[in-house]
Order: sequence, then structure tokens, then C-alpha cells
Amino acid sequence: MTAQRIDGRASADRVLAEAREAGDRLRETHGVRPGLAVVLVGEDPASQVYVGSKGRTAEACGFHSVTHRLPADVAEADLLALIDALNADPAIHGILQQLPLPKGLDAARVVNRIHPDKDVDGLTLVNAGRLASGQIADAMVPCTPAGSMRLIREAIGENLSGLVAVVVGRSNLVGKPMAQLLLSSDATVTVAHSRTRDLDALCRTADILVAAVGRPEMLGADAVKPGAVVIDVGINRIDAPERGEGKTRLVGDVRYGEAEAVAGFVTPVPGGVGPMTVAMLMANTVRAAYRAAGATPPRF
Amino acid sequence: MTAQRIDGRASADRVLAEAREAGDRLRETHGVRPGLAVVLVGEDPASQVYVGSKGRTAEACGFHSVTHRLPADVAEADLLALIDALNADPAIHGILQQLPLPKGLDAARVVNRIHPDKDVDGLTLVNAGRLASGQIADAMVPCTPAGSMRLIREAIGENLSGLVAVVVGRSNLVGKPMAQLLLSSDATVTVAHSRTRDLDALCRTADILVAAVGRPEMLGADAVKPGAVVIDVGINRIDAPERGEGKTRLVGDVRYGEAEAVAGFVTPVPGGVGPMTVAMLMANTVRAAYRAAGATPPRF
Repeated sequence: MTAQRIDGRASADRVLAEAREAGDRLRETHGVRPGLAVVLVGEDPASQVYVGSKGRTAEACGFHSVTHRLPADVAEADLLALIDALNADPAIHGILQQLPLPKGLDAARVVNRIHPDKDVDGLTLVNAGRLASGQIADAMVPCTPAGSMRLIREAIGENLSGLVAVVVGRSNLVGKPMAQLLLSSDATVTVAHSRTRDLDALCRTADILVAAVGRPEMLGADAVKPGAVVIDVGINRIDAPERGEGKTRLVGDVRYGEAEAVAGFVTPVPGGVGPMTVAMLMANTVRAAYRAAGATPPRF
Repeated sequence: MTAQRIDGRASADRVLAEAREAGDRLRETHGVRPGLAVVLVGEDPASQVYVGSKGRTAEACGFHSVTHRLPADVAEADLLALIDALNADPAIHGILQQLPLPKGLDAARVVNRIHPDKDVDGLTLVNAGRLASGQIADAMVPCTPAGSMRLIREAIGENLSGLVAVVVGRSNLVGKPMAQLLLSSDATVTVAHSRTRDLDALCRTADILVAAVGRPEMLGADAVKPGAVVIDVGINRIDAPERGEGKTRLVGDVRYGEAEAVAGFVTPVPGGVGPMTVAMLMANTVRAAYRAAGATPPRF
């Protein structure tokens, strides 16, 4: 028996369709069109690709979409002034500061200048505090863990009560918020990391295993409980000489083939969690627009 | 072999002596005396006792100490105005809003009005966010988990790397921040709760077991790994007919006698974690004063 492959692209498409419908509904009922502002500082090529993709996706969802491009040597005060202006702009419901920032700019200060209710990346301290306090409905949840939760719920349903969840990795962007979300869903949650002893044995207790370390294919069959849901957040580029000289390929933190033979559900890399991140950004934007309009936001 | 009994009163006295010394040092070096303001609304008898104790302890530490007593029917705007004034008062470094608040007042709104850097109870969303993001040095850590960490470190030393920690209970006041602190100390941390299956077996894996549920004597020998550190945060009042009609006594979440026979270290109730809470409030106040003076705060 092999695990069911979780199709993140199909799930992301469903989220995007729901976000679009929710946005259309808000225009009809409240005359409000969701608006997303993306701020890019400097010329980092990867960031340019991401920013372009986010803007296009927002447009495809029918959102108002603006991208602000600032030079790498912008004064921090000018960047903060832009964020203040976006905070005050009623046509903008979500503000995303693309990271990393060029040297000389304080990312924590810049990100925390975003109004928490417009912080669609969920990176401000206030949103981390809301999430840590179990105020999920009020929080802007970071997109990757939010998308991972959606994949888990689509795989095994809403009720995670009492399930054993192990999150490997404790980043502020993924591991920690993922643990908070699973805990809020009444799972029994362990956060494991580089100092954890007997990692495989611990992972093997997990009904839900989330790998978010960034180490190529570090977890294999020995880390997977039969029937478990395995969510592989890692996206690692490794050499692939078998594809030709200088070629590379993407792999996760999990050895997919091995996990597939043991797990009940497993996300591939690419095509698993990855596509969910931008989709949940749109979900957060439409939720922020609902809140700004005084309407109850849809759940994603 | 019986466990070593962790003497919370002795440890609290050490913290208070350190807080006093640190405050004296700050007066000498920076001319700043730590100041704590406690705000009490209404006539709740237990709250009156707590507030009196906090004020006296602050004075015993040599701090500037003020208590503001407001009537139960105070307008929320007036309470918020008082907090604004305390936020702006350079003689006040710590502000504590005694809870619970009378009906009609929004505790979350009131608490979050406290400037995060004066939030010596560690209850604001910003401090929860700092803690959740691993910014321990910047955060005001809630006093009970901070005191529990001190007891653990005094028992088994600074290095908790790779130890298995199980926190039973997921309150915002204790369980969740405790888990964050243990994780920041590189323990492998599981948060267990009422929906957790096989709780005893899980607890028995713990090198560090923290019980913070509020259910009298729910955990016994079967939940304790030989040699473990057991921190019992529960303070439950139960009937004690053996002491006479209508008499009561305090017990923890752990059956002390059973735990003592198995554990390496265990906190009693009373006299364990309890005394640490007020002591760490003084530690937070002096830390806040150091920061306000631009000095590096001492560690407790």
C-alpha cells in the first residue's frame, strides 16, 4: 500500500477560487474590493520573481494590486513612511514587505511598522502574540503553516483532537506557528529540532509529521508512523548530475519514496506545500478586507 | 531514594535579594530607582491581598511603589487614561493591572494598553509575540513560567539542550510561555492537555515535567520518569475534613508523595512555584528599569 499523494497545486487552486469568490461577494455586499500592496526593496532576482507572482495572483483573484519598488539604498525613514501611507490607505487591506531587505535596513522594525490587521504575512509581533495566545480568528497566520493546516484538514478532516503531532524545526516563519496551529486544533504537539535526541523514534510516534528544517531528505521511512500524514515544508535545491552537468533538482526534508511506502498521506516537493503559500496570502488578504469592512471573514 | 525537594521560598528569597541588589546598583550607577505601579479595580478580596503583597515586596526591594485603587464602576476610558499616564511616567518602570477586572471592562484591551516595555506581567500580545519568536532577552516573560525556569536551572543547571520536556496544560499564562522558554533552552518540548491520549506514558518520557492544569493531584508516580525534575504549578484548594469540619488545604496537580519516590527533584505545594511568582515580578521590574536607563539588565 502506498500513501495518498497530497496535491498541493489542486488544493491551492481551490483556495484561490474561494478567495476570488469571497472577494467578489464582498464587492457585491459591501462595495469593497480586496487590495494587496507588495513592497520590494532592491533588485534581488528571486524576490523580483516572487513579487511578480504575488501581484499576478492577486489580479487573477480580482483584487486591487499594487507593487512598490524602492531602490536598495532607500532611507529607512522613507520605507517606513511608505508603510505608514499604506497603513492609512483604505483601498489596501494587506501589506507585504518582501524579504530579505538590503543591508542597513532593520527588517524587524520595518515589518512591525505594518498595521497588524494588514500584516498578511503574519510576521508582526502582535500577530505572533495572537497566534501564541490562541487568538487564531483574530490573527493573521503566516501563509506556509496556514497552508499546511489546510492540507492536513483536507487529508484527514477537521477533527485533530488528541492526535500526536511532531513538528521538526522551530523557525518563527514555519515551525513555531505550525505548532501553535496544531495545538489550537487540540493535537498533542511536540517541537523537535537539531538538539532533539532519537529524532526518528520521536517522529515515528506522530499521526501528523511536519518537516520544516531545510535539510535535504533528512527523514526517511524510519521516521514515519504507518498511516501518518506527512507534510514536507522543506524546499531544498540539490545537485542532480543524473540530469546533466550542472543540473539541480528540488527535494524536501523527507525522502518521498520511503515516506510514501509507510505514510497514509504525503506531500511531494515540489507541488505540495509550496503552492499553498501564495494561495494563503490571497486568503489572508480577503480575510483582512472582510474585517476592515466589518464583515465576518470566511475561513480557509 | 527520594527526590530532592525544591525549596521555592528559599529560591524566591535569592531572587528578591538579587533584585534588591540590582536596584541598588542602578541607583548608584544611573540615579534610577525601579518603580512599580499596581492598578486594582474594585474590591475583590483575593485581589486586595495580592496587591498588598506585591506593593510590600516592591518596597522591601527598595523600589518606588505605588498602588492605584479604582472603583468597580470606573469608566474604561478613565482606566485607560491612568495606564497612559503610567506609560508616560518616567518614575514607573513596571505596570501591573491586577486581574480579574470587574464586568464591563475589557481585560484584553486594558492589558494591551500597557506599554510592552512596562508590561512586567508579560501579558501583552507584543510580549507574547516576542516570547513566541524566541526574543527572550527583549520580552517581559510572565512571572510564573519565568520562576519555574529558574527553579529548573537551579536544580539541574543551565544546559537543558536535548532534554525531553513535557508541559501539561496550555494556558496563555503558564503552559504556553513555559513551552516557549523550554524550547528556547533547546529542550524537546511537548505540550499536553485535556485531549492528550496516554498522558501518563507521555509524561513518563519527560526529563522535565511541568504540571500546570489546575486539577488536584491528577498526576502520580506513573507519570514520572525516574530522576526527572517535576515542577508543579497547580495550586488547588481541596476539602480537608481530617483537619476539622470545613477545613481545606492546598495541593498541586501532582501527588507529591508519589512523585517524591520516583523523581530526582520535585516542587512542593505550597512552597514551590508559588513564592517565585511575586519574586519574578520584582525581577521583571528591575529589568525594565535597567532597560529604560539604557543599561544591560541582569539575568534572573
